[in-house]
Amino acid sequence: MRYALLNGGKRLRPQLVYASAEALGLAPQRLDAAACAVELIHCYSLVHDDLPAMDDDDLRRGRPTTHLAFDEATAILAGDALQALAFEALASEPGLNHPLPAAAAMIAELASACGAAGMAGGQAQDMALERQQPDRDTLETMFQLKTGALIRAAVMMPTALVPSLPGTQVDDLREFAELIGLAFQIRDDLLDVEGQTEVIGKTAGADEAHGKATWPGLFGVEAAYCRIAELDDRARAALNRFEGNSEALHWLADRLVHRQS
Amino acid sequence: MRYALLNGGKRLRPQLVYASAEALGLAPQRLDAAACAVELIHCYSLVHDDLPAMDDDDLRRGRPTTHLAFDEATAILAGDALQALAFEALASEPGLNHPLPAAAAMIAELASACGAAGMAGGQAQDMALERQQPDRDTLETMFQLKTGALIRAAVMMPTALVPSLPGTQVDDLREFAELIGLAFQIRDDLLDVEGQTEVIGKTAGADEAHGKATWPGLFGVEAAYCRIAELDDRARAALNRFEGNSEALHWLADRLVHRQS
Repeated sequence: MRYALLNGGKRLRPQLVYASAEALGLAPQRLDAAACAVELIHCYSLVHDDLPAMDDDDLRRGRPTTHLAFDEATAILAGDALQALAFEALASEPGLNHPLPAAAAMIAELASACGAAGMAGGQAQDMALERQQPDRDTLETMFQLKTGALIRAAVMMPTALVPSLPGTQVDDLREFAELIGLAFQIRDDLLDVEGQTEVIGKTAGADEAHGKATWPGLFGVEAAYCRIAELDDRARAALNRFEGNSEALHWLADRLVHRQS
Repeated sequence: MRYALLNGGKRLRPQLVYASAEALGLAPQRLDAAACAVELIHCYSLVHDDLPAMDDDDLRRGRPTTHLAFDEATAILAGDALQALAFEALASEPGLNHPLPAAAAMIAELASACGAAGMAGGQAQDMALERQQPDRDTLETMFQLKTGALIRAAVMMPTALVPSLPGTQVDDLREFAELIGLAFQIRDDLLDVEGQTEVIGKTAGADEAHGKATWPGLFGVEAAYCRIAELDDRARAALNRFEGNSEALHWLADRLVHRQS
């Protein structure tokens, strides 16, 4: 579990949690459990996705994947226990800095985002689309589940601490999160095509080698850049409608859609 | 997920939840989410434990295991999503019949019981003990994690709805649950030795074939029966100290330690 979690990841999802908290005027320490939980879920998903029966990857964050460093059984169980720890962190943080009803709301948001109607369902769709030629909507729906749902949860979990937040504000934040999440996955596909293994920390070209349905693979690299720019523009427009200090969210959106690793 | 969940399991853990609720004087429908959640966790664990990299079993509840009926990737993801659904059920049941703080307490109990300090950790210990000769304490500690923790959670989750329950009563109930959970796993080991595949619904003799450290394998069948009787006696004594209508818990304890399948 330590090997899979404490390995120098970029911690983008926890950063999204804290940036969203800042936009909502919340003290960052009130979101420590949420930030940990979302990263625990992300790391468990990487361990399971890298398994031989799934994407069969050798390299993650520049190191051997967990099932190679240990063995497959250990990797499966470490992932399982990391998922459990995410919910335990939210439900039982000793210095709980949020009222318990908010904990339940955050757990509901996170559990929904990582289950059948979110990340795990999206990963299943991803595998079902291997060697297929899906249309853009089908591909992007899969992206929204596989990657977008957890990014949305990272941005939306802090809203549980602001029950008075107007519905339009909630909608603006959610729209921002969904658009950025989609752009993030298209960028991820581009990095697999254009990036170098030593920079991205995982095997470049793995998507094509596995017959993955990718955005640039299906619709072209140039069109992928255009689509990212379009999604980024719409995300920024939604965020600009949001009434709060969204500077950190803007900065992170930049990192997410222009990242080199 | 349906294949792994809706396949005629005995639902012993949900029955424990409802029996514990009865002992605490709670209306059963207040525990519907908890009962579902504990069975969702149990079923996900069976799917993952049966995987080729783990116990590599072909038969579960009289049918092909999930990875044989579908494929390994689907089995991994279905298990992952079943775990998420357990926590979603507890946190967001639409007709939520318990106050939200109790939901958080139940999630903390369940998450702890199925993570590194519970079921997943116990399964890892189980695999580490293959072809070893552990002493009785080591073996039983592994049993308490692998099997006992979830049974304890099933019995203890309803106490979250009775915050005024005296500490001694909580202790009696926990002691009952831990002793019955241990007896249950020794009985499970015995069934693997003495049971027939068509009755127990999984491959008889699988433990020995996999070099598993089992109670009867290490210390003898007769001693296993004696140990079960001793644990059962102590469990009943704890339950008799508990002030509440414990008839259903007594009846279930009988089923758990004398079951034929």
